[in-house]
Amino acid sequence: MAHTLTVGIDADDTLWHSEDGFEDTIAAYIELLVDRGVDHSREHIRTVLDRTESTNLALLGYGVKAYTISMVEAAVVLGGAAIAPNVVNEVIELGKNLLNRPVELLPGVAETLPLLAGGYPLILITKGDLLHQERKVHESGLADHFQAIEVVSEKDPASYTRLLREHRIDPATFVMVGNSVKSDVLPVLAIGGRAVHIPYHLTWAHERAEHDGTVPELAAFADLPGWLARHLAATT
Amino acid sequence: MAHTLTVGIDADDTLWHSEDGFEDTIAAYIELLVDRGVDHSREHIRTVLDRTESTNLALLGYGVKAYTISMVEAAVVLGGAAIAPNVVNEVIELGKNLLNRPVELLPGVAETLPLLAGGYPLILITKGDLLHQERKVHESGLADHFQAIEVVSEKDPASYTRLLREHRIDPATFVMVGNSVKSDVLPVLAIGGRAVHIPYHLTWAHERAEHDGTVPELAAFADLPGWLARHLAATT
Repeated sequence: MAHTLTVGIDADDTLWHSEDGFEDTIAAYIELLVDRGVDHSREHIRTVLDRTESTNLALLGYGVKAYTISMVEAAVVLGGAAIAPNVVNEVIELGKNLLNRPVELLPGVAETLPLLAGGYPLILITKGDLLHQERKVHESGLADHFQAIEVVSEKDPASYTRLLREHRIDPATFVMVGNSVKSDVLPVLAIGGRAVHIPYHLTWAHERAEHDGTVPELAAFADLPGWLARHLAATT
Repeated sequence: MAHTLTVGIDADDTLWHSEDGFEDTIAAYIELLVDRGVDHSREHIRTVLDRTESTNLALLGYGVKAYTISMVEAAVVLGGAAIAPNVVNEVIELGKNLLNRPVELLPGVAETLPLLAGGYPLILITKGDLLHQERKVHESGLADHFQAIEVVSEKDPASYTRLLREHRIDPATFVMVGNSVKSDVLPVLAIGGRAVHIPYHLTWAHERAEHDGTVPELAAFADLPGWLARHLAATT
């Protein structure tokens, strides 16, 4: 039974906290601008920041460096001539702090991942800044459990198809595990793979998506080995 | 004889122009700051920008987004309270223009790459922003000549070792081709591979390095198939 299935695992908000770091950074950003005299409501600041990020996404992509550039752009738009130039470098500092934020594993991950690695080849599949993701993988201490670490610029059917081809994996023997229906579930189902959804308590607006209700949803990462064992027993 | 050798090929300043785009951007940045009343010599502006980039390299890594953040930081440091906040967004615009700069192939690449691909498995190995590098590969029209496209965060012996292991390539049967002695030559020699140096007319200060004079140096990419054929004939 071993190695009938390869398990792909998302990283941000599946293995470790990520979105809460962005939310903390946004809260600090809004307080900074208000404190430095930017004359807009907190809600409007958030709206302009979200809009700037969304506009920049196609060109700048995901990750903290792209987000930092959007925070700077929005601060200048919001502050106009009234903003002191050094506030810009305070905003950049918020981005650097987010890059340096320590990796904090989600509950059960440290105990569960060795069990999984004993039963299946594991591939970590994440998107975002290459260097930042690699640094988090290294800092997490989890790297040795994975046969491969793959950082992609977008999690769409084309990138999953390319990854599975490179690793000589039949989509029918692949299951992806992650917190994002949009990135971890739907594109894998679209290419004939399977997916398990483990929601995180925060979902970035850009990642929100619906599925048809047939995708298995687990409450915690620690439930994964049991689910896979039952799933395998039922289908192979 | 086919497939005795796998050829790794660098992208920026080996397949297409890159460093000239950075140099054009730096020139535009210096003129912008001087024009907007920053009271420093062009040489000093360049020095502060280089120093900021260098300081940020470990945290932000390579690529245009990291460079854009460094340009903003340096502008605020140089301009102090005198700089108008909207200059910051003019600086970001310079970064975005660099990201959007069209890919311009180096002479002989479009004609030579199909010949190479007919004789050897080719792997493109580049470092920098994942999304930007992927976009350039796509825009170049060269992607189909490569068996794999690998974007790494650093070109050091560890990353070459990992790549060759993933592709099941013996370093003794691998040759890397590129413009950077530091990134394309020395780390590959260090792990038992071979390397061919094709200099570009500009070398980023960070990439400058010396080798012992025994590394083959070609004047142009078009010389590569002939050199490989002779090299293969001589060693296998």
